Amino acid sequence: MTPDFSLSAALRMRHFDAWTRATTHRFVQELGAGTLDDRVLGGYLVQDYAFVEELATLVGLAVARAPTMAGKRLFAGFAAILTSDENTYFERCFDSLGIAPSDRADPALWPESRQFLQLLREAGEGGYADILSVLLPAEWIYLDWGEAESASKPARFEHSEWIALHSGPGFAGFVAGVAREFDAAAGMLDAAALDRVSDRFGRMVELEGAFFDAAYR
Amino acid sequence: MTPDFSLSAALRMRHFDAWTRATTHRFVQELGAGTLDDRVLGGYLVQDYAFVEELATLVGLAVARAPTMAGKRLFAGFAAILTSDENTYFERCFDSLGIAPSDRADPALWPESRQFLQLLREAGEGGYADILSVLLPAEWIYLDWGEAESASKPARFEHSEWIALHSGPGFAGFVAGVAREFDAAAGMLDAAALDRVSDRFGRMVELEGAFFDAAYR
Repeated sequence: MTPDFSLSAALRMRHFDAWTRATTHRFVQELGAGTLDDRVLGGYLVQDYAFVEELATLVGLAVARAPTMAGKRLFAGFAAILTSDENTYFERCFDSLGIAPSDRADPALWPESRQFLQLLREAGEGGYADILSVLLPAEWIYLDWGEAESASKPARFEHSEWIALHSGPGFAGFVAGVAREFDAAAGMLDAAALDRVSDRFGRMVELEGAFFDAAYR
Repeated sequence: MTPDFSLSAALRMRHFDAWTRATTHRFVQELGAGTLDDRVLGGYLVQDYAFVEELATLVGLAVARAPTMAGKRLFAGFAAILTSDENTYFERCFDSLGIAPSDRADPALWPESRQFLQLLREAGEGGYADILSVLLPAEWIYLDWGEAESASKPARFEHSEWIALHSGPGFAGFVAGVAREFDAAAGMLDAAALDRVSDRFGRMVELEGAFFDAAYR
């Protein structure tokens, strides 16, 4: 997907244990098998939805800070999906799983959710490479498990649509584009900034696994 | 389209002469009639393209600063069109009109184009209402002339597609949404900020007419 010696590929390799822990987590395997407990899924979706607006904010900033029209197009398309198809998926799940209005609008946050929010906000205060240093691992990990589970066809939409949103050529092309943008932007960073984005990439990878763990707590 | 006493409707009325000068300009009438001189259209498109990237930046900031998911969705959808369909329209026109590569990438800017760039950048440094105070008049004026010319069906795509991009229920719904967002955001401004966004709205309306004039210079 990316050239061998790109920063994105190097960072993925550096964090490969944590990466694999997330992409092969019991949560995604049960999602693919259609055996995921509704309580586990409901808790996960409530928490995820609590920072999807902050994620949309960060993607808007990526549109703004992308240095080329191609980069702006990449993130504009993603922002459109995130705020429409993906948003209605949450709403339909909340209805089908009977999630209370208070949990949809203003849930008590897990520590892991607060860490996600903090990472997203911190990234948004930086430049383009800072933004991509959290968007890339988040979306790439979701692509990796989404592709792995895309052959399983669980019966319920709550399971199948979450897989469909994170697999297929459209989403794979998006993630490949984010990796290209990240590698190009990282090529212009000084050593301190490179350390900062590399560190944040790693924290995001760790957090993805921890977030799946938390859903079973 | 908006309640009688909304700020958006009031500002449109306050600048109605300049508004009408833009929306009934010779440029849009010749566009609808299919009689627009290729030199005039080519010059206009080259200048317009020189700030469409800055416009996409501003729309990305609108996605980021919109306080609700509905607002983020509104601008994410527009950003997607602006960076895809509208972008390819420019590229195909540049091919068909034989525009030189240097004029596509880095043209000598008209004074009016520099004023557009300045307004867009100034708006992007402010809050949500500041951003909308330039996006709303720009898109609303284009909707008004686009709707007026939508019954004319000029034969060449250079004319017909520019009308199609600025008319129809999708674009009308977008502009109505921007007006609602602007009115809601303006309702939370203090007097000084209200003056600032009102003034900028007026400058944008004036500039739209001046930009059409400049195409004939």
